[in-house]
Amino acid sequence: MRDMFALTERPEVISLAGGLPDTSTFAPELYDHLMSRVAAESTARALQYGPTEGMRVALDCIVQVMAAERTKVDRDEVIVTTGGQQVIDLVCKALIDPGDVIVAEAPTYPGAVPTFGAYQADVVQIEMDSDGMPIDELESVLDRLASEGRRPKFIYTIPNFQNPGGVTMSLPRRRRLVEVARERELLVLEDNPYGLLRYEGEPLPTLYSLDALSGGPGARGGGVSSDFVIYLGTFSKILAPGLRLGWAVAPRPVLEKLNLGKQGADLCSSPMTQLFVAAYFAELTDEGEPVWLEYVERQKDLYRARRDAMLLALAEHFGPHASWTEPEGGLFVWATLDGVDTTDLLARCRDVAFVPGRAAYVDEHSGANSMRLNFAGSPEPEIREGIERIGAAIREQTSLFGSLTEPKAAIVELPQRSRRDDQSSAGGRQSL
Amino acid sequence: MRDMFALTERPEVISLAGGLPDTSTFAPELYDHLMSRVAAESTARALQYGPTEGMRVALDCIVQVMAAERTKVDRDEVIVTTGGQQVIDLVCKALIDPGDVIVAEAPTYPGAVPTFGAYQADVVQIEMDSDGMPIDELESVLDRLASEGRRPKFIYTIPNFQNPGGVTMSLPRRRRLVEVARERELLVLEDNPYGLLRYEGEPLPTLYSLDALSGGPGARGGGVSSDFVIYLGTFSKILAPGLRLGWAVAPRPVLEKLNLGKQGADLCSSPMTQLFVAAYFAELTDEGEPVWLEYVERQKDLYRARRDAMLLALAEHFGPHASWTEPEGGLFVWATLDGVDTTDLLARCRDVAFVPGRAAYVDEHSGANSMRLNFAGSPEPEIREGIERIGAAIREQTSLFGSLTEPKAAIVELPQRSRRDDQSSAGGRQSL
Repeated sequence: MRDMFALTERPEVISLAGGLPDTSTFAPELYDHLMSRVAAESTARALQYGPTEGMRVALDCIVQVMAAERTKVDRDEVIVTTGGQQVIDLVCKALIDPGDVIVAEAPTYPGAVPTFGAYQADVVQIEMDSDGMPIDELESVLDRLASEGRRPKFIYTIPNFQNPGGVTMSLPRRRRLVEVARERELLVLEDNPYGLLRYEGEPLPTLYSLDALSGGPGARGGGVSSDFVIYLGTFSKILAPGLRLGWAVAPRPVLEKLNLGKQGADLCSSPMTQLFVAAYFAELTDEGEPVWLEYVERQKDLYRARRDAMLLALAEHFGPHASWTEPEGGLFVWATLDGVDTTDLLARCRDVAFVPGRAAYVDEHSGANSMRLNFAGSPEPEIREGIERIGAAIREQTSLFGSLTEPKAAIVELPQRSRRDDQSSAGGRQSL
Repeated sequence: MRDMFALTERPEVISLAGGLPDTSTFAPELYDHLMSRVAAESTARALQYGPTEGMRVALDCIVQVMAAERTKVDRDEVIVTTGGQQVIDLVCKALIDPGDVIVAEAPTYPGAVPTFGAYQADVVQIEMDSDGMPIDELESVLDRLASEGRRPKFIYTIPNFQNPGGVTMSLPRRRRLVEVARERELLVLEDNPYGLLRYEGEPLPTLYSLDALSGGPGARGGGVSSDFVIYLGTFSKILAPGLRLGWAVAPRPVLEKLNLGKQGADLCSSPMTQLFVAAYFAELTDEGEPVWLEYVERQKDLYRARRDAMLLALAEHFGPHASWTEPEGGLFVWATLDGVDTTDLLARCRDVAFVPGRAAYVDEHSGANSMRLNFAGSPEPEIREGIERIGAAIREQTSLFGSLTEPKAAIVELPQRSRRDDQSSAGGRQSL
């Protein structure tokens, strides 16, 4: 029953595995102050049930985050969820029958893999390059599926600083993806937890906003709605995962299905945490700037330095047969090691954790030589130490492989099957 | 998209519909004090992800609540969930394939009906009497199903102060239900949100504890585990629904499936609200008693008086053709009106809300003359006023029915089908 979160509570382990942001930067005094405000103004509401679609004050904060993503949305197009993960679950619940097709990137978010599996979806993955999912590849896959009489229920993509790949979908591909979705009338699930965590380069428009613009004069209540894009957002990476608050922005018919699904799943998300967010978003700095935006800026500075520390450590410790992505934002680096099975490698690492690449694929074998490394959740000395430890394990494993022709090597070769089972199970839980 | 929670925000409406406890009794000063403690001791943890199965400090509180329910459980047998509703959802996710049978009481929890429906379960309902579900009826149903080669995946019951029926399963029936479950190796989902809210009479043992005792020397880690009962608990009615914290206690193989399902559904429940609970459970009165138990006692006094006020008002305003249950605890009275369709009645009531009985049945017609009334969430004057308003609507509707032979009656007869649709949809959302 123990999972990755429990692992991170063991202090001797350096975990580069989870999708944890650093929450130690949030001032306890501010937490206390915000909760005092909630206590004084709305204790009874914080403790009561709230609307399934979310409290108005929380929806207003989401509209602000979407504006910072340069995406105009109307409060009525949004549903508050219990973290971004619940959006994936509710979209599957609303759309997927056993055997239905989902098209996803390769690699894809490890936390989505078991969810897709739980709904018995047939997931078709499209290998990315440094510009994200190649849309011509996508079109070939869609053509092939169409020739079999099949249509995906949705296309799942993380366009910014992809989890786990670390790459970002280029603007031409974004435009083309939206065109393809409109031409073929296919839904796209745009998972964007990290859009505001860009450490360099220019922000790119969301698929949601591109689709809304393509839709012509579809203005409703001051908002411009998307027809084919379901947008997934979350407070987890720009504020705090402990709130368990995310959201979906979706075309009306989908939104209604998500609402019904959420009623059955957990009735509503916590008013206590929604009111905390509302109080937080009302705070201004001495210069009159929103405190939440200033916090995002500070987190960006912190994570940028940690990313740089990790890239430096990788160059130092991972040896000549390794390669890795250099993300412009987000939380993750994706590293690939020629000839090294990272599932085996993780079993060898007693004091450092990462997500083995297989967790990001639905098949049994892909991603075997890759790993996801989180640079945002640990201080720089730990990042350097963690990468050094993995580097040492790589050298150890490589030297063992080098000596496989000698008789004693048989002793260290563990049963392939059971190792795979153990690790894939652990990988499934190292999910966010 | 508006639902019952939104309705309750309209101040002119007296809502006896929802499953809302009264959270206005929780002192804002205590809320503030508890959050200050969390801020001082664990801001970063409150804001971070937590373990999927729940934080240790929250699990320890749950063990205390279970002890108050005279049911011994071990921390390792428990999973924290996002409200009790999530237990129902996760149990269905773990066990139900389309067409699988669930046996439930009639009437049953209106919030479970759409969840069962979402998993395409075939729900067989067994009409209750004043002692709850008749177990000989259950056995007949099980025999009939067996003769068709079918076995229910689980039996769903709310043994204490049933929602919506207000009745309590007798001790002999509890014992027999556990025997039947063991004889036939069937799982029981025991939904017990209100067990501690008993206003009179002696507490009865949980099905979980009866099954654990039947299991012989199955002690594990100091706890005695049940083999066939999945227990659903929640902080929603004894403390606050706004926490979105419930739990399941379950046999190990089921627990592991619930954990996997929860990872896919929302990763973990909020550490922010879990730490609030932990801080609350650590508080003692001047006499050294746990504050949370004292609060439950105060809520019981409040709700007992409100129940009595509702029963009195019903006798005064509902007329000679009405009958209702007199619950020994919980939140709900179930009233039945000879010859009055409560779905029509609700449409007629502009300034008072209740849950029409059809929401508690999976078929199209049952429960048409009944309604669920919540006495816990409103002050006594509102309860009296609300029941008086419903009484007036009953008299109005009865007099219209009385004049159905006159030509003008056709004018007031709304299209039967669309009214049913509107209300069943609203009823589905009035779900807790």
